[in-house]
Amino acid sequence: MATETAIMVPDDPGHAMRARLVERFHRLRSRSTALTSRLSDEDMGAQTMEDVSPSKWHLAHTSWFWETFLLEPYLPGYEAFDPRFGYLFNSYYEALGERQPRAARGHITRPGVAHVMAYRAHVDGAMERLIAACDDAVLGQIAALIETGIAHEEQHQELILTDIKHVLSVNPFGEAYGKAEPPSVQPGPVAGWIECTGGLDEFGADGGGFFFDNEGPRHKAWLGPFALSTHCVTNAQYAEFIADGGYEAAGLWLSDGWARIQAQGRLCPLYWRGAPGEWREFTLHGERELDPSAPVSHLDYFEASAFAEWTGYRLPEEREWELAARQHDPQATRAMAPDGWLHPSAADQGSLFGGVWQWTRSAYAPYPGYRAQGGALGEYNGKFMCGQFVLKGGSALTPPGHVRASYRNFFPPQAQWQMTGLRLAKDV
Amino acid sequence: MATETAIMVPDDPGHAMRARLVERFHRLRSRSTALTSRLSDEDMGAQTMEDVSPSKWHLAHTSWFWETFLLEPYLPGYEAFDPRFGYLFNSYYEALGERQPRAARGHITRPGVAHVMAYRAHVDGAMERLIAACDDAVLGQIAALIETGIAHEEQHQELILTDIKHVLSVNPFGEAYGKAEPPSVQPGPVAGWIECTGGLDEFGADGGGFFFDNEGPRHKAWLGPFALSTHCVTNAQYAEFIADGGYEAAGLWLSDGWARIQAQGRLCPLYWRGAPGEWREFTLHGERELDPSAPVSHLDYFEASAFAEWTGYRLPEEREWELAARQHDPQATRAMAPDGWLHPSAADQGSLFGGVWQWTRSAYAPYPGYRAQGGALGEYNGKFMCGQFVLKGGSALTPPGHVRASYRNFFPPQAQWQMTGLRLAKDV
Amino acid sequence: MATETAIMVPDDPGHAMRARLVERFHRLRSRSTALTSRLSDEDMGAQTMEDVSPSKWHLAHTSWFWETFLLEPYLPGYEAFDPRFGYLFNSYYEALGERQPRAARGHITRPGVAHVMAYRAHVDGAMERLIAACDDAVLGQIAALIETGIAHEEQHQELILTDIKHVLSVNPFGEAYGKAEPPSVQPGPVAGWIECTGGLDEFGADGGGFFFDNEGPRHKAWLGPFALSTHCVTNAQYAEFIADGGYEAAGLWLSDGWARIQAQGRLCPLYWRGAPGEWREFTLHGERELDPSAPVSHLDYFEASAFAEWTGYRLPEEREWELAARQHDPQATRAMAPDGWLHPSAADQGSLFGGVWQWTRSAYAPYPGYRAQGGALGEYNGKFMCGQFVLKGGSALTPPGHVRASYRNFFPPQAQWQMTGLRLAKDV
Amino acid sequence: MATETAIMVPDDPGHAMRARLVERFHRLRSRSTALTSRLSDEDMGAQTMEDVSPSKWHLAHTSWFWETFLLEPYLPGYEAFDPRFGYLFNSYYEALGERQPRAARGHITRPGVAHVMAYRAHVDGAMERLIAACDDAVLGQIAALIETGIAHEEQHQELILTDIKHVLSVNPFGEAYGKAEPPSVQPGPVAGWIECTGGLDEFGADGGGFFFDNEGPRHKAWLGPFALSTHCVTNAQYAEFIADGGYEAAGLWLSDGWARIQAQGRLCPLYWRGAPGEWREFTLHGERELDPSAPVSHLDYFEASAFAEWTGYRLPEEREWELAARQHDPQATRAMAPDGWLHPSAADQGSLFGGVWQWTRSAYAPYPGYRAQGGALGEYNGKFMCGQFVLKGGSALTPPGHVRASYRNFFPPQAQWQMTGLRLAKDV
Repeated sequence: MATETAIMVPDDPGHAMRARLVERFHRLRSRSTALTSRLSDEDMGAQTMEDVSPSKWHLAHTSWFWETFLLEPYLPGYEAFDPRFGYLFNSYYEALGERQPRAARGHITRPGVAHVMAYRAHVDGAMERLIAACDDAVLGQIAALIETGIAHEEQHQELILTDIKHVLSVNPFGEAYGKAEPPSVQPGPVAGWIECTGGLDEFGADGGGFFFDNEGPRHKAWLGPFALSTHCVTNAQYAEFIADGGYEAAGLWLSDGWARIQAQGRLCPLYWRGAPGEWREFTLHGERELDPSAPVSHLDYFEASAFAEWTGYRLPEEREWELAARQHDPQATRAMAPDGWLHPSAADQGSLFGGVWQWTRSAYAPYPGYRAQGGALGEYNGKFMCGQFVLKGGSALTPPGHVRASYRNFFPPQAQWQMTGLRLAKDV
Repeated sequence: MATETAIMVPDDPGHAMRARLVERFHRLRSRSTALTSRLSDEDMGAQTMEDVSPSKWHLAHTSWFWETFLLEPYLPGYEAFDPRFGYLFNSYYEALGERQPRAARGHITRPGVAHVMAYRAHVDGAMERLIAACDDAVLGQIAALIETGIAHEEQHQELILTDIKHVLSVNPFGEAYGKAEPPSVQPGPVAGWIECTGGLDEFGADGGGFFFDNEGPRHKAWLGPFALSTHCVTNAQYAEFIADGGYEAAGLWLSDGWARIQAQGRLCPLYWRGAPGEWREFTLHGERELDPSAPVSHLDYFEASAFAEWTGYRLPEEREWELAARQHDPQATRAMAPDGWLHPSAADQGSLFGGVWQWTRSAYAPYPGYRAQGGALGEYNGKFMCGQFVLKGGSALTPPGHVRASYRNFFPPQAQWQMTGLRLAKDV
Repeated sequence: MATETAIMVPDDPGHAMRARLVERFHRLRSRSTALTSRLSDEDMGAQTMEDVSPSKWHLAHTSWFWETFLLEPYLPGYEAFDPRFGYLFNSYYEALGERQPRAARGHITRPGVAHVMAYRAHVDGAMERLIAACDDAVLGQIAALIETGIAHEEQHQELILTDIKHVLSVNPFGEAYGKAEPPSVQPGPVAGWIECTGGLDEFGADGGGFFFDNEGPRHKAWLGPFALSTHCVTNAQYAEFIADGGYEAAGLWLSDGWARIQAQGRLCPLYWRGAPGEWREFTLHGERELDPSAPVSHLDYFEASAFAEWTGYRLPEEREWELAARQHDPQATRAMAPDGWLHPSAADQGSLFGGVWQWTRSAYAPYPGYRAQGGALGEYNGKFMCGQFVLKGGSALTPPGHVRASYRNFFPPQAQWQMTGLRLAKDV
Repeated sequence: MATETAIMVPDDPGHAMRARLVERFHRLRSRSTALTSRLSDEDMGAQTMEDVSPSKWHLAHTSWFWETFLLEPYLPGYEAFDPRFGYLFNSYYEALGERQPRAARGHITRPGVAHVMAYRAHVDGAMERLIAACDDAVLGQIAALIETGIAHEEQHQELILTDIKHVLSVNPFGEAYGKAEPPSVQPGPVAGWIECTGGLDEFGADGGGFFFDNEGPRHKAWLGPFALSTHCVTNAQYAEFIADGGYEAAGLWLSDGWARIQAQGRLCPLYWRGAPGEWREFTLHGERELDPSAPVSHLDYFEASAFAEWTGYRLPEEREWELAARQHDPQATRAMAPDGWLHPSAADQGSLFGGVWQWTRSAYAPYPGYRAQGGALGEYNGKFMCGQFVLKGGSALTPPGHVRASYRNFFPPQAQWQMTGLRLAKDV
């Protein structure tokens, strides 16, 4: 890669900023490919259900994003690596034309992995040239887009892991993505409640650092007093819910959720195996015994809601979670370690961010005053504000750059393949 | 019916209250059957899509409701009219056992209409005996249940009309439910905006009069300043949206809505017929020319949302609507006239309640502090708090008892067969 | 009806033929309506699965058939009863334009039953006028069409009973179509084999009497020696197959059949209720104990085939059945008695026609030299020659006019709602 | 591979036979892998529709077949390469237990291609040891099984090509499987008719050489006089059918076929691209202009049947085809050249075997006297005798060992991805 020459431009007044951008860009891109280093070409091409995209597709799509939103508009003379890639690797941008049907991403045997890697190198080189050589005026314009691009590719880093977990899980070989052991944990404090008095407060991103458009605008809202559990619900607690007949008690379930588990004959979370008393679970480190004190994961919204109902407590509102996090866990970060442990563990219980994405009972809706931005990028968030719920926190797979109190993740209630769990709330 | 003897109990200290209850009950029940007086037995048995229930089923289900929640627990020695009816006419109460699948309500050829009418008479007689003869202590208990039963049956009165409209519409005969002409309208004020300053306020039912559990508890919330349109969106405005390419502009639509109209090849609201420039619509009074100044109706949420996007305004929040109604239309009532005009008209534009149910962008969720009540009746509202949107107002088919600012109607975003439209909102 | 004047035309040389035609027509039409005399309007309008048509639809469709193929072409000045009926009551004739979707026949609440009866009377009167008053030349032309129309309406008489059985069966009331008791039976001969030497022979209709186009042309074919069982497989034998694990033994089933019972969790024939050892079955005379020596009925092809495999024998070829019937049961007739017993009984075991339609292993295909006739009537049989199997014999619901050795009934292998069973065959 | 030592056993009396078997086995196996030599690992793993299996799966499944039916029963001490492969690579043998769902064969990312190649080598070595070292008595037993195994793997060689064509076709890159040009053709004789007098004759395999169980038993049947076209229907003729409105004329189509093209909006054969007047087609050699005189291919049964109806002729019976082939093309062979031209061409018109599999109007049914063999291998053919049609001939992808008059290929009527066309027939 042409990185070194690109950053050696001593007379550029924005030199340091350019150097930092190039370095962050380079680190981001390397991390994405590093995540696939232990996968075969076949692993990287498979799509095992409609929600899952092949790793190869993620690597190509993120490159297409840079090409489409940065290189084509801003790098003079840039030539697309392959004009057919716009069709193959556009995810959902209607404004950018027709695209490969989502359910058929696994049909893309060509380009192959090596070809996609060449695509990445091509884009990397061009991005480095763009950052190094653009006018200062352009630099100002593109800096924000680059932040969006970084955040976007980090989301896909999480998806690469989430999706390959599903691919490996449906295979009777049950092979691990990688070897690791969970962090050892000192016996921590017993679970309790974090109490918040609520009142009139401000919510949403406050303008410091990058945030997605759906995190703003910052706005006032009133909250009554409430409490959140200090700990996420554990595997042991969820196993007790099952043992107590949770999946047979219609009264605990939302109507759609009850219909769903009846139709599917479901009796446990997505990756649990075995039977009551001897549950095991499939993880990126292979099938393992259930850790009783780790947060339960891969619940859909209906399971989270039924569990909360069973306890007599409830799911939090998204603003309750945000307020508690700002007040009680302001320094939270979470390090995703590609060579490390990629599963929720008891060690995650120390933070509100907790090792799992936590379902709230807040439907994903625009904040007061929200308007989607113009252009194709305006499709990024706004058009999905229907039929989904907000999740707060961050999981064992979430890149550190995504750990902040205002972050709004969102999925439809039936999504189970994400690393999702819950934290209880109550009125006080 | 044994009405007269039942209310002639002079020594009863609750005499007047009992008499009023019996009279209201009797009026309610008569109105339900009156709504079907012009329908044939075949009209009353057909189910033309899963959402639609046969009129006969509505008449029987509402009777089952009285039998199950009032007569069996409170009338000593009451014998069910037919124990098999519990299976046939339970709508969705899991706590009350197995039931006829919703999609198979049209398969119930037996009992026939006459048999269902006998069921109604049996229940009517027993209810009148219960009201007339129960202890005062019991009277206190059942009075609230009776209010719920009245509200429940009134909801089904609206559904009888909503559903028979669909039945008649799919028939090539296109016959009218009844003959009527729209009210004549004096030219009213030009459409404008109702401005509200918002701030911290209280929302939800205030405890005066009957309300459903989902309308409470009353709670504080903060609203920024906003304005609502004085008029609902009209047929003429919606036709202009279509003519302007509204159904071809992906950027206006929520992602799920766009997928839906693409898959269905939809180009207009459910009951519109013809083509741009010569639209007609099917109404309960037959197929008619479109009234340009009447509120547009039978939009799904996606259509309402896309229309709002096209105008540059937005849909209201449910609390914005409630606040505006309390401040600007506190005396609203709306008379449903079974022999009258059963379609939105320009005359409805004078009130916020407006002739159509108005989509808000608020997902149907529990109010702060809400807990579903215990027992089977606890299934009434809570278990549907997922995947639906709140609608405010009331339609040309809504019984007067349902017209209040705190009322929360709710339907999934794809529902079109309800009499649904929209009112625009904006931030100020 | 104008029957009497119509047949009182003494100078007409075709007088007797016309009189006979009118009388047969009249008897046919009366029998159709008599079949529905004990049904309510709601019974007559319901469609409980796609294969089932409402009784009312059958009554109207058969009238449309006369109107379309006889009255409109041949009765000068004939005016259609209602031009919209062509859309509603065309079954599948592409050449005759668009029609009500098959799955939506239950949506036709209008015209009502009384209106359909008026339609029948209108058609009856016109048909009688046509027969009485047409030229002799026309009489020759229409006589064959009238035979087709009679055969067609007789098929629908069987379908009226077949379909109403399904309608009544899905109702928890389980009511009977009518009361009757099975014929008493003298102990007959023990089941044995009818042996046929086969050889080169001729098959198909021989031109004596009416036959459908698919029964011809008469053609040569070679058969090896074979034997057919004298008796149809009985309920007792089929219960033994179930008890022996027939529904769990993949090796007995055709691949599609095994997939089907696995997906549906099926364990017994369509109308059987209860469990091994205490089977009952739903009949047009209500739910009854299984008669062990009556032919088993309502099997699909896969069940018939698996049963045969279990015995080590096989299903017959259609020409084997035809040859055996011509040689061993040449005088067979079967009387359908609308007030009589409408279910297979041990008394049916005396004839090859046997009380049930008997699955053969012959796919429904054109006989050598077959060409579909021209015009819309050409769609009657030819276009279904794909994916179906031939059934021979006739059931307890089959009108007598349909009992002949050359008759080829046909249904897809998954059809269960017809009164279908089997007779075993073997090579000798 | 241990081939050489295995065949160097001079004292073995069955020496020559063993050597020939090993050599044939070795050639077969090499050809299978050679077919995939130009494919990437990703090409070999993809499943682009349920009917398509990944190349990798074919390579593994054929190895599993040898392992299951030859090595495990007959090679003492044989150890399965990997016991989990039985689940992954069993195609449809119920008697051999649970297996990977057919629609999920593309989910098998592990074992990878290299692992499957190691599996093949393991099986190859063991098979060579078995052939070389077994007792003479065993040799007699296994020789027939080896013939079946060879025929089975040859079928999968054809499927490897058929399936990879679909994989390549759905990719917007439209890349070719390989480069080749069609054989040049001398202007041949004009198309005419091959007349056969028919009569009583014998059909089915006559016991010389290998045949599948479904090709027997040999049996007598009578045929009337008939003629078959000397040429298969060409692309030019099919294009004329389209231009003449063939896909809009309901009267030409079987009912199920018409419903199918209406639902799918189909207007041409599977791999045709473009529009009338400028048709192109996707082939294993990339997208090319249509060759007007080559046989049309990739028709389903409905298209073949509608085309025949349009001409006024008909599809052949399977025995007509067999008789004509025995009488008029007794020496036919067809060389599949992996490096050659893999598409029907005008040069194929010289033989009845014709470059395409030719739909007959004969449903796939057991021949008189047919009994499926015992054991798991009995599932090979018998359980599919329902809902499929027989095809005769052989295509440009068919291995030479499959070219014989008695061969009965079979597919359901909607199958298009096979290289299927038609030859016309008529009565004379």
